[in-house]
Amino acid sequence: MHELTVRRKVEFSDTDMAGIVHFSRLIIFMENAEHAFLEALGASVSMDYEGVHIGWPRVAVEAQFKAPARFNEHVDIHVEVLKKGTRSMTYGFEMHASGRLVGTGKMTSVCCEMTDKGPRSMPIPAFLADRIEEAPGSDTEAS
Amino acid sequence: MHELTVRRKVEFSDTDMAGIVHFSRLIIFMENAEHAFLEALGASVSMDYEGVHIGWPRVAVEAQFKAPARFNEHVDIHVEVLKKGTRSMTYGFEMHASGRLVGTGKMTSVCCEMTDKGPRSMPIPAFLADRIEEAPGSDTEAS
Amino acid sequence: MHELTVRRKVEFSDTDMAGIVHFSRLIIFMENAEHAFLEALGASVSMDYEGVHIGWPRVAVEAQFKAPARFNEHVDIHVEVLKKGTRSMTYGFEMHASGRLVGTGKMTSVCCEMTDKGPRSMPIPAFLADRIEEAPGSDTEAS
Amino acid sequence: MHELTVRRKVEFSDTDMAGIVHFSRLIIFMENAEHAFLEALGASVSMDYEGVHIGWPRVAVEAQFKAPARFNEHVDIHVEVLKKGTRSMTYGFEMHASGRLVGTGKMTSVCCEMTDKGPRSMPIPAFLADRIEEAPGSDTEAS
Repeated sequence: MHELTVRRKVEFSDTDMAGIVHFSRLIIFMENAEHAFLEALGASVSMDYEGVHIGWPRVAVEAQFKAPARFNEHVDIHVEVLKKGTRSMTYGFEMHASGRLVGTGKMTSVCCEMTDKGPRSMPIPAFLADRIEEAPGSDTEAS
Repeated sequence: MHELTVRRKVEFSDTDMAGIVHFSRLIIFMENAEHAFLEALGASVSMDYEGVHIGWPRVAVEAQFKAPARFNEHVDIHVEVLKKGTRSMTYGFEMHASGRLVGTGKMTSVCCEMTDKGPRSMPIPAFLADRIEEAPGSDTEAS
Repeated sequence: MHELTVRRKVEFSDTDMAGIVHFSRLIIFMENAEHAFLEALGASVSMDYEGVHIGWPRVAVEAQFKAPARFNEHVDIHVEVLKKGTRSMTYGFEMHASGRLVGTGKMTSVCCEMTDKGPRSMPIPAFLADRIEEAPGSDTEAS
Repeated sequence: MHELTVRRKVEFSDTDMAGIVHFSRLIIFMENAEHAFLEALGASVSMDYEGVHIGWPRVAVEAQFKAPARFNEHVDIHVEVLKKGTRSMTYGFEMHASGRLVGTGKMTSVCCEMTDKGPRSMPIPAFLADRIEEAPGSDTEAS
């Protein structure tokens, strides 16, 4: 599996005084699409696995905002795998609202054992890595 | 000690498309005033004490909104102790922005041992309870 | 129509360091159920109607938290009409997650013309008021 | 003027179930440092000027997260001007908590007339542009 699209509706509390969705909420929309992708693979952004609590702190995020999204619009968030590393994942995102391109983005999350002393990186468990493919042509995009 | 006032400035991300502070942010302003009150007493809403991790989940919140607060205004949040129980605290709040009464509120938080299985109520530690007084005349208000 | 239930899934960003949903997010869940109720009636919390821009600022909110809600749980938010006033609505809420009662609440929102100078209360438009009924037995609850 | 540092304290509601500040809040911390920079220059991210309402929607955001920030820590957010364009500004950010580098970032915001039909880019007003300098050596960084 290398991609997924989730849809959500803009809520009133997602907006700001400019009358549009606050950009931080669009970034959270992307985060949630990543989480949905992991769940579609039988995993989770917060899961216990073989005695270890695994989390996926992000180390890099970027977003480009192309057009405003507004209250009550449906936003389709497309997530795809740009790069599957041994210990990290880089995802690419595209968000459309009512057919308009609202924004694009990229996130890199690291597979971590979540310990009392903080996150410690670890290899992505095989059961999960086996189910993840990079999106066609993504090598160049992610470089 | 029975009261405290904290001041904060309304941030852009506190607002919504109605051009004013979203009410959920005003409730968070109240929560933070409660936290500041605990800190002024040498405690914290999240603290380790005698081998126990203590938290203060709230069981009841209410707020009345009297006037809008706007971007960049300073909001003064006054918190006072309405009731000091054995295992819980009830706080009263008043918020002013630029001299206008923006809102009032009340919160009840329970002193809890935070365990892996969830919060479990416990008596407020004596060192802290000893430092807390009810605000004058608050008996009637809190009933 | 006098009630509605909406379902949503708890997102990672809804949680706090206590490992559970932050109470302010549960209050936003209630707000969104109110908005869904208005939409089910062909209205909206932010709508243009006969040359007027109508909004529904809330003047009072309360919530009681009964049990924690956790990441990835589905929360069912039931909203019902406790009181239909001439210019305001009072809603009652019940939230369940995985069968547990997570919280209850109440909100009063005022029908307002949203002007440049701020909100001004106005009678609920007839087309909408006609479609709203109070929940059976709600007179006593709302008093 | 080409830089500014603002300090804020991590609030409970800034955290998530991983026990650390949610990354979206760090991005909002950067946004607020940008707003503080504009204010220090006698402007605002939302201001009326010569009959026009000016806003600064962002078109690009990026952040790299280096270490977790925790509840109650003070975070120092340093903002500097990487590029002063005719109609846009690119800012660079560095965030430290208790001496640790927590994150870095970059934002590009466009000076816009905020109209009923949405934002429309415009030249940065001279009074403001005159007060802004690029940080020394920033040409290379921003490219």
